[in-house]
Amino acid sequence: MMPVDFHFREKIPVGILGATGAVGQKFVQLLSSHPWFCVKALAASERSAGKSYREAVNWLMPAPLSIEMGNMPVLPCVPNLPCSIVFSALDASVAGEIEKSFAEAGYIVISNSRNFRTDPAVPLLIPEINIAHLDLLHYQPFGKGKIVTNPNCSVCGLALSLKPLDDQFGVEEVHVVTMQAISGAGYPGVASLDILDNVIPFISGEEEKVENEPLKIFGVLKDKAIENRTIKISAHCNRVPVSDGHLECVSVKLKGNPSREEIIECWNQFSALPQAWRLPMAPVRPLHYFHDEAYPQAKRHRELDKGMGVAIGRLRKCPLMDFKYVILSHNTIRGAAGGTILIAETMVKKGFVYW
Amino acid sequence: MMPVDFHFREKIPVGILGATGAVGQKFVQLLSSHPWFCVKALAASERSAGKSYREAVNWLMPAPLSIEMGNMPVLPCVPNLPCSIVFSALDASVAGEIEKSFAEAGYIVISNSRNFRTDPAVPLLIPEINIAHLDLLHYQPFGKGKIVTNPNCSVCGLALSLKPLDDQFGVEEVHVVTMQAISGAGYPGVASLDILDNVIPFISGEEEKVENEPLKIFGVLKDKAIENRTIKISAHCNRVPVSDGHLECVSVKLKGNPSREEIIECWNQFSALPQAWRLPMAPVRPLHYFHDEAYPQAKRHRELDKGMGVAIGRLRKCPLMDFKYVILSHNTIRGAAGGTILIAETMVKKGFVYW
Amino acid sequence: MMPVDFHFREKIPVGILGATGAVGQKFVQLLSSHPWFCVKALAASERSAGKSYREAVNWLMPAPLSIEMGNMPVLPCVPNLPCSIVFSALDASVAGEIEKSFAEAGYIVISNSRNFRTDPAVPLLIPEINIAHLDLLHYQPFGKGKIVTNPNCSVCGLALSLKPLDDQFGVEEVHVVTMQAISGAGYPGVASLDILDNVIPFISGEEEKVENEPLKIFGVLKDKAIENRTIKISAHCNRVPVSDGHLECVSVKLKGNPSREEIIECWNQFSALPQAWRLPMAPVRPLHYFHDEAYPQAKRHRELDKGMGVAIGRLRKCPLMDFKYVILSHNTIRGAAGGTILIAETMVKKGFVYW
Amino acid sequence: MMPVDFHFREKIPVGILGATGAVGQKFVQLLSSHPWFCVKALAASERSAGKSYREAVNWLMPAPLSIEMGNMPVLPCVPNLPCSIVFSALDASVAGEIEKSFAEAGYIVISNSRNFRTDPAVPLLIPEINIAHLDLLHYQPFGKGKIVTNPNCSVCGLALSLKPLDDQFGVEEVHVVTMQAISGAGYPGVASLDILDNVIPFISGEEEKVENEPLKIFGVLKDKAIENRTIKISAHCNRVPVSDGHLECVSVKLKGNPSREEIIECWNQFSALPQAWRLPMAPVRPLHYFHDEAYPQAKRHRELDKGMGVAIGRLRKCPLMDFKYVILSHNTIRGAAGGTILIAETMVKKGFVYW
Repeated sequence: MMPVDFHFREKIPVGILGATGAVGQKFVQLLSSHPWFCVKALAASERSAGKSYREAVNWLMPAPLSIEMGNMPVLPCVPNLPCSIVFSALDASVAGEIEKSFAEAGYIVISNSRNFRTDPAVPLLIPEINIAHLDLLHYQPFGKGKIVTNPNCSVCGLALSLKPLDDQFGVEEVHVVTMQAISGAGYPGVASLDILDNVIPFISGEEEKVENEPLKIFGVLKDKAIENRTIKISAHCNRVPVSDGHLECVSVKLKGNPSREEIIECWNQFSALPQAWRLPMAPVRPLHYFHDEAYPQAKRHRELDKGMGVAIGRLRKCPLMDFKYVILSHNTIRGAAGGTILIAETMVKKGFVYW
Repeated sequence: MMPVDFHFREKIPVGILGATGAVGQKFVQLLSSHPWFCVKALAASERSAGKSYREAVNWLMPAPLSIEMGNMPVLPCVPNLPCSIVFSALDASVAGEIEKSFAEAGYIVISNSRNFRTDPAVPLLIPEINIAHLDLLHYQPFGKGKIVTNPNCSVCGLALSLKPLDDQFGVEEVHVVTMQAISGAGYPGVASLDILDNVIPFISGEEEKVENEPLKIFGVLKDKAIENRTIKISAHCNRVPVSDGHLECVSVKLKGNPSREEIIECWNQFSALPQAWRLPMAPVRPLHYFHDEAYPQAKRHRELDKGMGVAIGRLRKCPLMDFKYVILSHNTIRGAAGGTILIAETMVKKGFVYW
Repeated sequence: MMPVDFHFREKIPVGILGATGAVGQKFVQLLSSHPWFCVKALAASERSAGKSYREAVNWLMPAPLSIEMGNMPVLPCVPNLPCSIVFSALDASVAGEIEKSFAEAGYIVISNSRNFRTDPAVPLLIPEINIAHLDLLHYQPFGKGKIVTNPNCSVCGLALSLKPLDDQFGVEEVHVVTMQAISGAGYPGVASLDILDNVIPFISGEEEKVENEPLKIFGVLKDKAIENRTIKISAHCNRVPVSDGHLECVSVKLKGNPSREEIIECWNQFSALPQAWRLPMAPVRPLHYFHDEAYPQAKRHRELDKGMGVAIGRLRKCPLMDFKYVILSHNTIRGAAGGTILIAETMVKKGFVYW
Repeated sequence: MMPVDFHFREKIPVGILGATGAVGQKFVQLLSSHPWFCVKALAASERSAGKSYREAVNWLMPAPLSIEMGNMPVLPCVPNLPCSIVFSALDASVAGEIEKSFAEAGYIVISNSRNFRTDPAVPLLIPEINIAHLDLLHYQPFGKGKIVTNPNCSVCGLALSLKPLDDQFGVEEVHVVTMQAISGAGYPGVASLDILDNVIPFISGEEEKVENEPLKIFGVLKDKAIENRTIKISAHCNRVPVSDGHLECVSVKLKGNPSREEIIECWNQFSALPQAWRLPMAPVRPLHYFHDEAYPQAKRHRELDKGMGVAIGRLRKCPLMDFKYVILSHNTIRGAAGGTILIAETMVKKGFVYW
C-alpha cells in the first residue's frame, strides 16, 4: 500500500454509512461522479440491509437516482465493507458505536454525526480553517483507523465567515440568529403542519453546538490536544419553511478596528489550502460578498460555487457590537456531505489515506 | 358637544383613511362591530373614490366583507368626512400632508403611518406603556385637531416585552432579530417568487425604526417635550414566508440581576390602565409566557387574546448579554389596526374625544 | 332515561375516541363550548392513557387549549366511559374493533373513520342530504348501541354541491380533481420536505372513496338497506401545501338542461332540515355561490359559516360535460369533526339519543 | 449569406426582446453557453434601455448572472439589433406590434408571447409534434422576416403526452386540470399574500388557450393553411404555491382500445426529429414514465432531461373516459424559453436561418 498522490491509477474505494437518509443521499449524489472516490458500499440499518438501494431509499434529491447506484445492494453497518474510507451520515443514536467499530477495524471514518465532535482526540475540521488539527490523528486511540468529524451545519458558514476576520482583526464576541432550512432535520423530519406558514424558534441541541463547536475549530493544537478558544458566542436557532440553505444574522465584536471596506476585502480575498490545491470539492472562493441590499438569500445563493461557497451580505455597523452581516450557506452541501467530502480530499492530499 | 363617558348613548363616528389597503381592511374588520365606534366614512385614493367599497377593495380578510360595509361609498381623503376620529392607514408617500390637513380641520387623527412618529409634538403611543405622553396633545400645533401615532409593527411586541423588565430591572441594551410576516408589507407587497422557499434578510427602513422608536416610547415627558431614553438597540430585520405574526429573537442586558423566574413572573403579572379600564380592544393580559420549549409560534399564537396579546417563550441565559427570549405578536392587529384602535379608546377614556 | 328534547336541563355527556390526533383535537375545540354536549371523556391509545390531556397532546389548534380540557385525564379506549355518545377520530387500523365494542356496550358511536362506511347496516350521513338513512338504525346488529359514519373529507363538499343539482336536474356523471390540505393527513402526516414547493398527485385510497361514497349517500333506503345510486364519478386526488381547506374542480353532466342562473339560484336557495331546525353546528346556508372569478379559495373561505358552509364559484359551460365549477370546504370542520357533530345533533333531534 | 449547416464556423447572433422579465432571464441563462447561438443583443422597454443589463434586471435565476451578460447594454426594442434571430419574451400588450416590426425588417422572430399564436399564417410549434407546419413560413406576409410561436406553458407538456397516443390510438376527448407554478405569472406576478397557504382556481385567459392551442398544433397543413383538429378539450386552471413546474391531471378518451402497458410503452418509445438530430436543447427522450405511485412531482422532476423532458405517472383506468394520468413539465424551460430555443434550432437545421 502506498500513500495517495494525484496520479493514482484507480479511484479510492469509499463507503457510506446511513446511506438512505437525507444526508446519506446527498453523499450518494455528490460522490456518484467524484474524480477520486468510487462508491463501493452503501450501508444502512438492518431494516434496509438486503434490499437494493433503489428499494430501500425514498429518494429526495432533485436529480434522479442513477441506475448504477440504484442497483447497489444495501449492506449492514458492520466493518467488513470493501473500502478504505467510510463517510458517516448515521443518526446520533447509533453513530458512536458503529463509527468506533469501523475505526478500530482500520477504516478512516469521516463523520457528519455529532458523537465524536467534542472528543479531544478527534479533529472537528473545516479544511479552510484548521487543517493543522489533522495532526491529532497521529495520537488517536482507535487502533489503525481514524475518526474525523465535520461541524454542525449552522457552524460551517459562520466559522468560515469569521476565519479571515479572526486572522486579521481578532474575533472577541459573536451573536448569531439562524434561520435554518427543513432539510437540516432529515427525513421525515419536520411535519408540514408545524412549518407551513410558520417559524419554529427552537431546534433541539442546536444552540449549544453553535456556541461551542467554533471554540474547538478555532482552537490551537498544543501538546497533542486542542486548546479551545475563548470567543463568547450567543445563538438563537430557528427553523423556517425553506427547503435548503441556512441564513444567519451575525453581529460581531472585533479586537481591531477595521473599516467596512477592509472587511469586505478580507472576505473576498480569503483563500486557503483546499483552494491552492484545487481539491475537487473545494469552492473556487470560500466567501463571496454581495452588495445588493437584500442579499444573500437561500433561493438565489444556495448553489453558489457548487453549494460550497458562503454568500455574505449586508455588512453594516452594529450599535451594540462592531459590525452586523448576514450569511447564507447550503446546509446539506457545505454544512454536511460536501464539507465532509472536502475533509476526505484534504486527508488524501495530506497523505493520511492508504488503500 | 360633551366629553365621552362610558354611558354615551350613541357610538362615536369614525372614518378610515386608506381604507382599501391591507391595514385599512383590518381597520374595517375590527371596527365593524366595535362597541364604541361606528364607521361613518371610508376614504381612499382618487382612483377608488366614487366606487362602492366592495368594488374598490380587493378584500383579503378571512371573514367575508359585510354587506353593510361593502355598500358604503369610498370617499376622497379630504377633511369633510362625517366623523370625529380618523384612523389613518395611508401610505407614507401621502400620509403626511393628508393627516395634517385633517388635524388642522379639527379631526383627531390616529395614524399607523410613520410620517409623524418622530415629530416631537406627536405622541408615539402604546397605551400600556406611555399613556402619559398624551399630555403632549395640549401643546400640538395642528389647530383644533390632534395627531397621535402608533409604532412600527415590529416595535409594538418588543416594547411591550421590555416595559415590565425596564420598570423592575432597568433595560440597558437590546439585540433583536425579527422574522416578519408578509402582511406587514401591504398588498400586493412581497412577490411570491421572492419569498416562497426563501427568507429575505432586508426590509427597507425597518431596522432604523426598531432601533429608534423605542427610545421615544420609553422617553419621559419634560417641558412639553419627550426626552428620549438612551437604550442601545441593534436590529436585524427579515421577511419570512408567514402570513401573519412577527417573531423576534431578543437578547437583553439589564441593570438589575433578576432570576429567570422573576422575569417570567414580572411578564405574567404585567397589567396597565387599558386592562384596568377594560377597554374593548385591550387584551386581558398584554404578555403571556409559554413554557413549551418550541413556543411561541405565529401559527399557534398570533390570535392570542384577540390578536392583542404578546406571546413570549424560551427565556434563558445569554452568554453575551443577560437573557435571551422569543416573542410573537400579530403585526396587523397588535402592531397596526388593533393597537391604533386601542389608542383611540384610551383617548376617549381620557376625555380627549368630543363629538 | 328519557328521549332528548330541546328543553333538556343538562347537557348530554359525550366522549372522544382518538382525542389526541388532529381530528380529535378539532372535536375537543368544537365541543368545548357546545350548547348541547358536554365532554366527559377523552380517550386515546395506551401510550397516552394515564396522562393529562395537556401532557398527552401536541396541541395544533390556533386557539389555546383551555385549562379545563387540558386537565382532563386521558382514558383508554374501552367501553366504560361516562357518556352516551362517543365521537370517533380513531385511526382506521384500530377503529373497527374499538367502535364495534362501544356500540355493543350500548354507546352511540359517530365515527369519522372509514371502517364502517361501506357496511350496509351503517348510515353514511350528511344531514342535509340523506337524513332518511338514519332509519337503518332500527335494524343495526350492534346490540343496544348504534354506529353512524360521516363521509371522507373530500366527499362532503362535493356531495353537498351535487345534492340540489341532483334534486332538480339529475346528476349523471361527475369528474372531480381535488387539491387537498395537509391537515387531512393528520399529524405528523405529510413531511415538509415532501410538500414545501410541491404538489403530490396521490393520496392513498382517496380516489376510491371519492368515487364510491357518494353512491351510498345518494342511495335510497329500500327493504332495510341502502340501494346505491349509479352516478359515474372519476376522481384525481392531490395534496397541496395548504393548511386547511380542500379545493375541488368539478365537471358535471346533468339529465336536465338548466341555465347557469338556474344552477346558481338552486345552490343559493338550498336548505334542509338541519337549517330548519337551526341545529347548533348547522351552517345558516350549506352552499354559498361567489361571483368573483378567482373564488373560492382556501385562505378566504374555509371559515365560511363556522367552517360548515361550502363555497362555490366559477360556474361555466364545460366543453365535454355540461358545467364546470369549483368548490372549497373546510376539511377538518365540514369534512370531519364539524360534520360528525352535526350528525349527533341530528340524531338528538330525531330522538335517537337517550341519556 | 449562406444557409446554416452543422459545420458553421461562427455562432449565430441572436437577440432577446423583453430580456429583463422572468422568461427573458431564462433565455439569457439558457443561451449564455449555447453551442450554436451567441447573444448579441438584449432589448427591453424604454425604462431599461441605456442601462447595463445588470442594472436593469432583477435577476431571479438560481445561478448568478455572468459578468459578461451583466455588462451588456440594454437596447430599445427597435429592429436594428445586430443579430439574425430574435427571441421574444415580450408582454402581450406590446408584443404584437414589436414582433411584426422585426419580422418586416427581415428578422426571424421566435416568440413566447400569445399574440400571433392564432394567426393562420404563423406556426404554433412544438418541434417533436408539428415540424411540418414550418412550411407555412413560405407563405408568410411579413416581408423577408418570419414569425414562429411556441405554445402556452400548460399546453406544451399536455400536447407532448397526447402526441404518441394520438398517432397510435387517436385522441378524441381530453379533460385536464392544471396546477401551475407561480413563475408562469412572471415577475412580480402573483402576490405572496394571495398564494401562501392557498390555491387560486383561476388564471386569466389560460383555460381558453389550453382548450384551443392543441387544436392548431395537432392540425394538418392543407392549401397553405392549418386545418384545426376537432378534439374536444375541457380545462380547469389553478395557480399553486410551487416555484417552477406545472402539474396536470389528465383524463383522455381514445378511439382505439389500448392496454395500460401499451400506452406506457408508446410514451417511453416516443422520439421525433429533434431527438434524431440531437439538437442541443432537445431532451434525450421527450416523455419519461415513472412507476412510483406518487410521481411525478414538481420538486423531483422539473429538471428532468435539462428541464425539457415531460414526466408522466399514475396511468390508470378512468370511470368516465378511458384513462387518467398525471404530467409534470417545467413551465419556463419546456413551456417557454427552452421550447422556443428548440424551435430556433429546428429552423436552423431545416435551413430557414441565414446569417
